[in-house]
Amino acid sequence: MAEIESNLPNLVAIASNVNRVRSGIITLLTDFGTEDYFVGAMKGVILQRFSQAVLVDITHDIPPHNIPAAAFTLDAASRYFPPGTVHLAVIDPGVGSERRALIVASGDHFFVGPDNGVFSLVLSRDRGALITSITNRAYFLPDVSFTFHGRDIFSPVAAALARGEPPDVFGPGVRDPVALEWSRNHLAIDGSLQGSIIHIDHFGNCITTFTLKDLRDGGDGEFCFRAKGTAIRKLLKYYDEAGPDVGNPFLIVGSAGFLEIAIARSSAARKLNLAVGTPVRLEFC
Amino acid sequence: MAEIESNLPNLVAIASNVNRVRSGIITLLTDFGTEDYFVGAMKGVILQRFSQAVLVDITHDIPPHNIPAAAFTLDAASRYFPPGTVHLAVIDPGVGSERRALIVASGDHFFVGPDNGVFSLVLSRDRGALITSITNRAYFLPDVSFTFHGRDIFSPVAAALARGEPPDVFGPGVRDPVALEWSRNHLAIDGSLQGSIIHIDHFGNCITTFTLKDLRDGGDGEFCFRAKGTAIRKLLKYYDEAGPDVGNPFLIVGSAGFLEIAIARSSAARKLNLAVGTPVRLEFC
Amino acid sequence: MAEIESNLPNLVAIASNVNRVRSGIITLLTDFGTEDYFVGAMKGVILQRFSQAVLVDITHDIPPHNIPAAAFTLDAASRYFPPGTVHLAVIDPGVGSERRALIVASGDHFFVGPDNGVFSLVLSRDRGALITSITNRAYFLPDVSFTFHGRDIFSPVAAALARGEPPDVFGPGVRDPVALEWSRNHLAIDGSLQGSIIHIDHFGNCITTFTLKDLRDGGDGEFCFRAKGTAIRKLLKYYDEAGPDVGNPFLIVGSAGFLEIAIARSSAARKLNLAVGTPVRLEFC
Repeated sequence: MAEIESNLPNLVAIASNVNRVRSGIITLLTDFGTEDYFVGAMKGVILQRFSQAVLVDITHDIPPHNIPAAAFTLDAASRYFPPGTVHLAVIDPGVGSERRALIVASGDHFFVGPDNGVFSLVLSRDRGALITSITNRAYFLPDVSFTFHGRDIFSPVAAALARGEPPDVFGPGVRDPVALEWSRNHLAIDGSLQGSIIHIDHFGNCITTFTLKDLRDGGDGEFCFRAKGTAIRKLLKYYDEAGPDVGNPFLIVGSAGFLEIAIARSSAARKLNLAVGTPVRLEFC
Repeated sequence: MAEIESNLPNLVAIASNVNRVRSGIITLLTDFGTEDYFVGAMKGVILQRFSQAVLVDITHDIPPHNIPAAAFTLDAASRYFPPGTVHLAVIDPGVGSERRALIVASGDHFFVGPDNGVFSLVLSRDRGALITSITNRAYFLPDVSFTFHGRDIFSPVAAALARGEPPDVFGPGVRDPVALEWSRNHLAIDGSLQGSIIHIDHFGNCITTFTLKDLRDGGDGEFCFRAKGTAIRKLLKYYDEAGPDVGNPFLIVGSAGFLEIAIARSSAARKLNLAVGTPVRLEFC
Repeated sequence: MAEIESNLPNLVAIASNVNRVRSGIITLLTDFGTEDYFVGAMKGVILQRFSQAVLVDITHDIPPHNIPAAAFTLDAASRYFPPGTVHLAVIDPGVGSERRALIVASGDHFFVGPDNGVFSLVLSRDRGALITSITNRAYFLPDVSFTFHGRDIFSPVAAALARGEPPDVFGPGVRDPVALEWSRNHLAIDGSLQGSIIHIDHFGNCITTFTLKDLRDGGDGEFCFRAKGTAIRKLLKYYDEAGPDVGNPFLIVGSAGFLEIAIARSSAARKLNLAVGTPVRLEFC
């Protein structure tokens, strides 16, 4: 965890913008699963407070308490929504403790959730985001539980924001949000670039910390991408380009901009025994 | 199963209220899962009959045919929705048989579903609820199947209710809805209070039949809460209050008002091998 | 795979109809699962392009790359939606390759997705459907990835269609869509009718290729339905008609019109060890 330094002049400019636009859309991202009453109760509270809200689920299947996965998914999905959208992100193992509750106004989007790093990627893309600590109890449910702030605090605050309230009515500004230290690629002694797998998607594609730029930086030489004993030397444009060569792993530039390890019509994660955190290595020869 | 005695004068007063307000919201709670066409077909029928409907999923992941779980979840989620909301609850192992189809008007909410106990908790909180047996085929789809009343009967009736029809157009009043006999806590010979686990949530927290009042009733003595050989003597306010003592179970007042057995950032159900129905015991010393 | 012959005069008549009506509803059916950012990003794009869209999930839990399951589910759910609904179906293992992207206008519904057989059942019910190849990049996102056309092509096209654009602005007509060859029942040498299991639902009911007509065609004789060593001689109207005879399999006419193998309050698939593709046989005696 580390602090992000913010830039006050930028904040002011952005703040005046975000105070104007509203789409009425509220997205929801949690680790609550879909089998309990939790998500339903949150939606009920939002609709009680703002009957015109348009509710869109991003996902409720973030692995329990997995803040990095939530930060990745929130960033990848939120950028496709209209200006003035409120993104509610409740992965909150510290609920009830002294951890702060935040509103992040970045560009023309709002993000609402606990101060535990879930906004790390959004904030790393916008050093001038305006951040507010949610302290004004006038916007909470009358009875705030110790265990479900998603329902009692975050949902009514998101509803009020989506209805048009400016962020500064909810509490004081904040300049030191919690931020995850994302593992970055680094150069090893042998000249290879070391990274890791940050996400595995529904199809078993393994999203790495590398981008196309890392491959291009190697110049004209052939690359060799290593993950747990598997060496990959092929970069394809799309999954089915593998053609009859089905079964062999290849790299692909995924839809979130990162290099993925994939196998056509199969799960690379299962076939190659890869997991989130598995180290990967890029060599040139 | 047992009958609930209702109170006719109250019914009339409530009925005149519920006939007025409508939010346009229809919530859906089923045990249909999300991998089939069932939920999609129900939503299509509702939108055919009431294009302005606002559809909100509570959950479709109730364990198949598990009426107690459905009753618990319906009650916990529905109370957070705006007045005039219609709650569609289709857990219906008896579909096609002679079981009745009901509308329950409780306070300013409507509940629609089969007469099999799914409304037990709602009705136990409101002895004056107005109950209607759905018999008027004018509101059904033209062809009613024997196996999917969720689509053919309950969805078009919910749409008509949400559009503003009063409950009494759908059929005659009912005073003997099916009700589950919920296991209640009882005093054992040794002076301990016996209860059970009624639900396990997505995080593995085990919701019991006990409330904070049961603890308080024990006076100033220390309590000991026993579940399958585990003794719990600690009541925390929030999950992370456990601090460095991660791994040990504690009690917490859950967001639905019941005492839960929890382990910080872990699954108490898996770690302590607890399941729905596991007996729990409260002693004082 | 085979081509479907279309009927040009019919096309014109239908086209003029589908160009008029719009419900504003866009349904989504994918094999993306619900744990990634994929579905959220698609919904964001749609709402960017058409803020009044009403989004309804059919399912995102089609087994990965399973086009027959998607075709079955799309057909069974879509027919219950209002006229002028746009159905977005993205099961797309060939994304990025030369496979075409299609709009199918059938009756008063629109279907948008890849040309890989996902519209087979819809097209088999409407030989006069109007089919368009999506080629007009003016409707795509500015940057089209090689791996996520659901977000970059299909979602913005669906939004434009739902907003009222006529199909012919998106590209040229098509008369040879890819179609799945569905396994049909056939008469065996011994006089029995051979078919198979095409789907297993959330409750373990096994949907077969047979309909009630196949049973009736056998005349007054008793039927015997065989699946993997189990012989079924009973046709019930609803699941609970089994009464105290719980545990024994029976046939039932399912809600999509096909004969299903079922066991009351249990999973026939698990108890009888049946799977998609398992052959079934109908004999009379």
